Amino acid sequence: MIGRKLTARLVRDGALNGHGIHRMTLTDIIVPDPPGARFAVGTEASDLSAPGAAVRAIAGRPDVIFHLAAIVSGEAEADFEKGYRANFAGTRELFEAIRLAGDGYRPKLVFASSIAVFGAPFPDAVPDDFFLTPLTSYGTQKAIGELLLADYTRRGFVDGIGVRLPTIVVRPGLPNRAASGFFSSIIREPLAGHEAVLPVDESVRHWFASPRAAVGFLLHAAGLAGAKELGARVNLTMPGLCCTVGEEIAALTRVAGTNVAGRIRREPDEAVARIVAGWPQNFDARRATALGFRAEASFDAIIRAHIEDELGGRIAG
Amino acid sequence: MIGRKLTARLVRDGALNGHGIHRMTLTDIIVPDPPGARFAVGTEASDLSAPGAAVRAIAGRPDVIFHLAAIVSGEAEADFEKGYRANFAGTRELFEAIRLAGDGYRPKLVFASSIAVFGAPFPDAVPDDFFLTPLTSYGTQKAIGELLLADYTRRGFVDGIGVRLPTIVVRPGLPNRAASGFFSSIIREPLAGHEAVLPVDESVRHWFASPRAAVGFLLHAAGLAGAKELGARVNLTMPGLCCTVGEEIAALTRVAGTNVAGRIRREPDEAVARIVAGWPQNFDARRATALGFRAEASFDAIIRAHIEDELGGRIAG
Repeated sequence: MIGRKLTARLVRDGALNGHGIHRMTLTDIIVPDPPGARFAVGTEASDLSAPGAAVRAIAGRPDVIFHLAAIVSGEAEADFEKGYRANFAGTRELFEAIRLAGDGYRPKLVFASSIAVFGAPFPDAVPDDFFLTPLTSYGTQKAIGELLLADYTRRGFVDGIGVRLPTIVVRPGLPNRAASGFFSSIIREPLAGHEAVLPVDESVRHWFASPRAAVGFLLHAAGLAGAKELGARVNLTMPGLCCTVGEEIAALTRVAGTNVAGRIRREPDEAVARIVAGWPQNFDARRATALGFRAEASFDAIIRAHIEDELGGRIAG
Repeated sequence: MIGRKLTARLVRDGALNGHGIHRMTLTDIIVPDPPGARFAVGTEASDLSAPGAAVRAIAGRPDVIFHLAAIVSGEAEADFEKGYRANFAGTRELFEAIRLAGDGYRPKLVFASSIAVFGAPFPDAVPDDFFLTPLTSYGTQKAIGELLLADYTRRGFVDGIGVRLPTIVVRPGLPNRAASGFFSSIIREPLAGHEAVLPVDESVRHWFASPRAAVGFLLHAAGLAGAKELGARVNLTMPGLCCTVGEEIAALTRVAGTNVAGRIRREPDEAVARIVAGWPQNFDARRATALGFRAEASFDAIIRAHIEDELGGRIAG
């Protein structure tokens, strides 16, 4: 989803870091839809963990690589081997292909990491120097990717930066069965005229940014001057908005009215509540903020971004 | 070195965790010397990263595995591929062999990690929740081992515990070219009647434990009741002694006299000083201490352990 939105933004801008884009290659497990663009766009179906796939993926020697590929959290937990293959082996194969290119190739590599590299218990606001304590295989795989990225960058094989994305809301599309899905669906579904189920208490607090902000993080990361600005610590917790489910609903009421907000049905689910209790609630993302990364300052802004970007400005009042 | 001392201790004790030892297998890149023991001892030359080697290494289904194997820091930095093969691929192959055993096998696995998983800048005393910021490939490989150990333990494939060893002094044997070598050689060489070179200022502060304490950490780790005592955070910074080079020398003077301490020649080396400046100086190893791990309380005790264990009580006064 973020990849699709990043692609759309790059196509629209036609430029990255102030330079015109000449060619873009989209690589995914299934052939991605090629966007209409003023520059050349290649598409490839490829499993980076398969022999030779990573070497082929960088054959065109792109200046900038956005590495977003991942088996998501729930699937990586359900299928241990698949998660390690995609998120761990695939990432390492990509880094190795770059290292072994052997022609002085040293691209900028923006690695999409996740706040899943952290695990409870947490301090009130997780600081930039909090330790990596993933409580899922997905978080472990992302944390290992971060460590490899830092070492390959330090050794001069790649110019890497890792961005730990907050939970992205409002996710477009159909409701999915991810435990975090309700954070989005309680906004998205009512705005589309549908009922949504809220499985947790309104006091639940979490860390958010919009898909638009996430794309902004990736683009801003691509423009930073690597070691000069980052030093040895190339993986950064992105800024976000800390708010409760109750504050989400209050924002929805302000932006779209009580009729829309009334489409949220409370249906407590102990299992979901237990999972969510292990998630971080708040970060002090000082370094990324100092480096110019920006998230929304209010949940109202997150909802408005969704209405503009996904609903063409129209609400099912 | 630690492996050899651990083996000697297990042979002497004949027991581990209160149970008699029936069989011990020593695995190393070159065939290890078999110690004389009252129980069966097997020895194997094996590269864990080679196909099938890890499966063979656990064929006897040991109840307890001490995984110390490593290409050391300097060599892992000089030879990128060799370091990743031994410290990263070898470790993962071992964990995979255990996971795939398929017969309910779930050994206790004690993983020797290192304070090299941390990198400067540091707070005054590095807390247990300080982030993993290795500044060497060796530290990166150890940090990845810790993350895998935690995930494999959480998933129930192994009963893992990682112990981050302090810098071990006094290392026996000949001086080596490791940047940290002088911490040991300024004690070991004068005690043996030889001159030693001190390349840094006496104000340099670092974090130490004796080889005897290190063996104690590994044995104590093997006896902890896994998840019940550790929770999800199975990797622990070991306690140690924070002291300066000047305090080392003062201890040597107290234990062995001014004549012995007079064999230290000051020969400042900017390159060594720069490397050492990036190392941690002090830790607040609260969790490990609460779990019963114990290091020496004074450098005098570290020197005395060396005199007893390596010099048969004799000093070249």
